[in-house]
Amino acid sequence: MILQGRRSWVFEQPPVIIATGTVVGPDEGQGPLAADFDLVHPDLEIGQPTWEKSEKVLMEQATDIALQHAKLSKDKLNFFVGGDLMNQIISTTFAVRQLEAPYLGVFGACSTSMESLAVASLLVSSGAADYAMAGTCSHNCTVEKQFRYPTEYGSQKPPTAQYTVTGAGAAVIGRSGNGPVITAATIGKIMDLGIKDPFNMGAAMAPAAVDTIQGHFQETGREPGYYDLIVTGDLAGVGHPLASEMLQRNGVPMERTKFNDCGLMIFDVEKQKVQAGGSGCACSAVVTYGHLLKRIGSGDLKRVLVVATGALLSPLSYQQGESIPCVAHAVAIEAANPGQGGANG
Amino acid sequence: MILQGRRSWVFEQPPVIIATGTVVGPDEGQGPLAADFDLVHPDLEIGQPTWEKSEKVLMEQATDIALQHAKLSKDKLNFFVGGDLMNQIISTTFAVRQLEAPYLGVFGACSTSMESLAVASLLVSSGAADYAMAGTCSHNCTVEKQFRYPTEYGSQKPPTAQYTVTGAGAAVIGRSGNGPVITAATIGKIMDLGIKDPFNMGAAMAPAAVDTIQGHFQETGREPGYYDLIVTGDLAGVGHPLASEMLQRNGVPMERTKFNDCGLMIFDVEKQKVQAGGSGCACSAVVTYGHLLKRIGSGDLKRVLVVATGALLSPLSYQQGESIPCVAHAVAIEAANPGQGGANG
Repeated sequence: MILQGRRSWVFEQPPVIIATGTVVGPDEGQGPLAADFDLVHPDLEIGQPTWEKSEKVLMEQATDIALQHAKLSKDKLNFFVGGDLMNQIISTTFAVRQLEAPYLGVFGACSTSMESLAVASLLVSSGAADYAMAGTCSHNCTVEKQFRYPTEYGSQKPPTAQYTVTGAGAAVIGRSGNGPVITAATIGKIMDLGIKDPFNMGAAMAPAAVDTIQGHFQETGREPGYYDLIVTGDLAGVGHPLASEMLQRNGVPMERTKFNDCGLMIFDVEKQKVQAGGSGCACSAVVTYGHLLKRIGSGDLKRVLVVATGALLSPLSYQQGESIPCVAHAVAIEAANPGQGGANG
Repeated sequence: MILQGRRSWVFEQPPVIIATGTVVGPDEGQGPLAADFDLVHPDLEIGQPTWEKSEKVLMEQATDIALQHAKLSKDKLNFFVGGDLMNQIISTTFAVRQLEAPYLGVFGACSTSMESLAVASLLVSSGAADYAMAGTCSHNCTVEKQFRYPTEYGSQKPPTAQYTVTGAGAAVIGRSGNGPVITAATIGKIMDLGIKDPFNMGAAMAPAAVDTIQGHFQETGREPGYYDLIVTGDLAGVGHPLASEMLQRNGVPMERTKFNDCGLMIFDVEKQKVQAGGSGCACSAVVTYGHLLKRIGSGDLKRVLVVATGALLSPLSYQQGESIPCVAHAVAIEAANPGQGGANG
């Protein structure tokens, strides 16, 4: 039985992350995780005439690298599952055009990373795919332009704002192989506590992360101690402490050293000018597929829960006075051999 | 085995369409299928101060009606799968906020109708959900405003342009029940033959429909004669004849009376001012969930293949000189009892 509770999947035949590809921009290349990424671009343009085309190239490169690492030709891929923050998810669509894979576009704002990984895992685990790729991307300048102001405008930001990661991450999921396995996933409900400030999305998203984390434990029967590390997607400096506090108050305390956030990990938040920390679809994607999988590979981590968070607003919904609905999707990734084949812990 | 070929699913345990909800606007209410819809609004405003809020209400109503018809309380729904044409799919997101269901946002432009139905069917068929809802919506004025010009501008259009359907359709999928069943689905690849004119999307989308239809037959072993009716999503007056011609040329001729298009069915294209015919996420959704399911229920049709088509452009990609990548997703819907339990035909 895959379904546990209302919205969690526990995979009896845990699909394998066969290989990944991660590409980042210059700021991420100066951050503490730089060595974990496959390709670091020294500039934001990446040889393209528009920011949108630059973002598309990031995604193309991540998918190409993932396939190379998997030693898989692109025609073996049954499905690509992914999306991004751009209107009509054009970065992903145009990148998948050259990949020539059957295409399931998804959207969950910055939670797209784990939404796509959860769906790709289900496809493989259920026998609906032999190989599925999950992927997502973001670019600091496309997002600034679309959601806020043109970068040339040089507008100031409050310290609660976040800095969109430039990058792309892709993962090839298959039925067997040597990589880490995906043992479970919990799909998020939309949470909206009425926050309307698009420069404080961490606070808006914190309740969604908390709801999904608690739902995951309740439905799978797992406890916080089951995991060596639980990371949220991009709650950053304001949202992550809020989530900790809410979990504590709800009777699900997290050990400080075992609860972190991809938006806090990818940058040196004290030294780099990133306000409260990183965000964007690529944030949790490259931290997961680059950094966390390397630590699982080295034996440093055995079980990780990635809880990608997404703020589902549009500039228009904000202009019309709407609050910011948020969602978080969780995926459990585990080392392949520690004596458990994806069984419920 | 669910997977057949590269990208088709044949469901050994065919999921059931337990109930649907369809809501449309005034133009659709004057079209030939008006009697098949659950709710027809006499105006486009629907009591809301903005077009986007009107579109959200359409989606809320369709999901509410579908649940009522299914006699299902919303907490029994494991997942909502859906999306729309708006930037960041806000219509769906804001509608699902009140539905309080775990949320898998998807995007395939107008193919979202069958993308969401295919994914919801897979969730149920694979045991990943007891009940899943698929849904999508569009509104003529939100789409005109976002993709073209403000409606107040009154810009003229060429006869190849299409008229976005105002409406929303939702379907509750479950493991058993009395409704028609979903026996197969084929996921589309991105097809881009270089067409750049956003006022001729039918022509841009025709190759995607053809590719998916041919892929469906090849992979499932079915033939055109297996179906009583094959409908494309919204190719309309220009794209549909093109698709017919391409299929003929490729050696897969369609009987004229058994090959139609939702964009041609929903309006009286001769009499109503809809240029080449209908389009929009809601077009194939309301025609399928309203009209076609009623005909299956009455015994008039036994096996239908719905091939929803989507043009994956954004205004920005068009402005930057890009062509229009397109996709089409096919779902096979059959009467429950004609002596076959979803087996491969």
